[in-house]
Amino acid sequence: MPIIHVRLFEGRSTDQKRAFAEAVTQDAVRLLGCTPESVDIIYTDMAKSDWATGGKLWSDPKPG
Amino acid sequence: MPIIHVRLFEGRSTDQKRAFAEAVTQDAVRLLGCTPESVDIIYTDMAKSDWATGGKLWSDPKPG
Amino acid sequence: MPIIHVRLFEGRSTDQKRAFAEAVTQDAVRLLGCTPESVDIIYTDMAKSDWATGGKLWSDPKPG
Amino acid sequence: MPIIHVRLFEGRSTDQKRAFAEAVTQDAVRLLGCTPESVDIIYTDMAKSDWATGGKLWSDPKPG
Amino acid sequence: MPIIHVRLFEGRSTDQKRAFAEAVTQDAVRLLGCTPESVDIIYTDMAKSDWATGGKLWSDPKPG
Amino acid sequence: MPIIHVRLFEGRSTDQKRAFAEAVTQDAVRLLGCTPESVDIIYTDMAKSDWATGGKLWSDPKPG
Repeated sequence: MPIIHVRLFEGRSTDQKRAFAEAVTQDAVRLLGCTPESVDIIYTDMAKSDWATGGKLWSDPKPG
Repeated sequence: MPIIHVRLFEGRSTDQKRAFAEAVTQDAVRLLGCTPESVDIIYTDMAKSDWATGGKLWSDPKPG
Repeated sequence: MPIIHVRLFEGRSTDQKRAFAEAVTQDAVRLLGCTPESVDIIYTDMAKSDWATGGKLWSDPKPG
Repeated sequence: MPIIHVRLFEGRSTDQKRAFAEAVTQDAVRLLGCTPESVDIIYTDMAKSDWATGGKLWSDPKPG
Repeated sequence: MPIIHVRLFEGRSTDQKRAFAEAVTQDAVRLLGCTPESVDIIYTDMAKSDWATGGKLWSDPKPG
Repeated sequence: MPIIHVRLFEGRSTDQKRAFAEAVTQDAVRLLGCTPESVDIIYTDMAKSDWATGGKLWSDPKPG
């Protein structure tokens, strides 16, 4: 504990994921009172065609 | 809010996902009292070899 | 298939959840080519103190 | 019910997933009082570069 | 790894959850090649009014 | 995007969740290139009797 699941658009590099996992693990240790070893962080990359907000897929052109 | 996660077998087209996202967003506005912009819909495509019902993978032939 | 998970703020009634489940199931039949029996819809009610956007819990007063 | 979601490192074969789904379904019938048909098991394969424990991606070399 | 999330109707006892967790962990060791310590099993209890199949909440009376 | 789901043992205060959400949102802005408004963080509190590691519920006494 904790298990932290991060769902984000594809395109972030492994370096970005590594840096974010380090930072969030340190936040969890400092603010939630966990040991570092107990923190699992999991990434799911999403295609923009698999995410809609306001009824519009992010892969579709914005009106305007 | 809300976040709506749809897990379905791979094979649906982007057009189907777009139409379903539009319909579900309208349902949420009408029935749950959300603004459209607050509705996120996320798709996860599943291979039939990654889903079992009754102990049988959907990729395996059905008995009979 | 599909499994549809709806995460929303607590406070919606069972009548609202029933109506939304009916509507979304009909959408799935019409637009995704499912049988009605294959559609599972699952609700998770969220406290506003368990959801942050822009780094602010929804239970906290908005600035302004 | 139940829906059982299994998140594991990529590399397990379909034969392993089939055998695990059969075993877990039998456990659910025996221990949770379900019918076999009511048990859904879903797999998500994870790349080691998408999972961090203790702030370290599993794809990175271990110190030592 | 693996993380196994079990979503089931409320009403199962802690004894049932303990027994199921033991059995599934042994299955994972035997069939997926994990160490026991690497297996996390997480339960989410669901109210029948928060789950619909075929557009019907499980808390509603069945027709017939 | 992103949606960050944090599953942790119950017992953390709202103040801890607020501080962690602020920190993680800043990490996401700095390291993943998001706007703050695009970051959703969601907490699920878990009872120790709903989480097993190595086949043992966390609510059970440790051997030794």
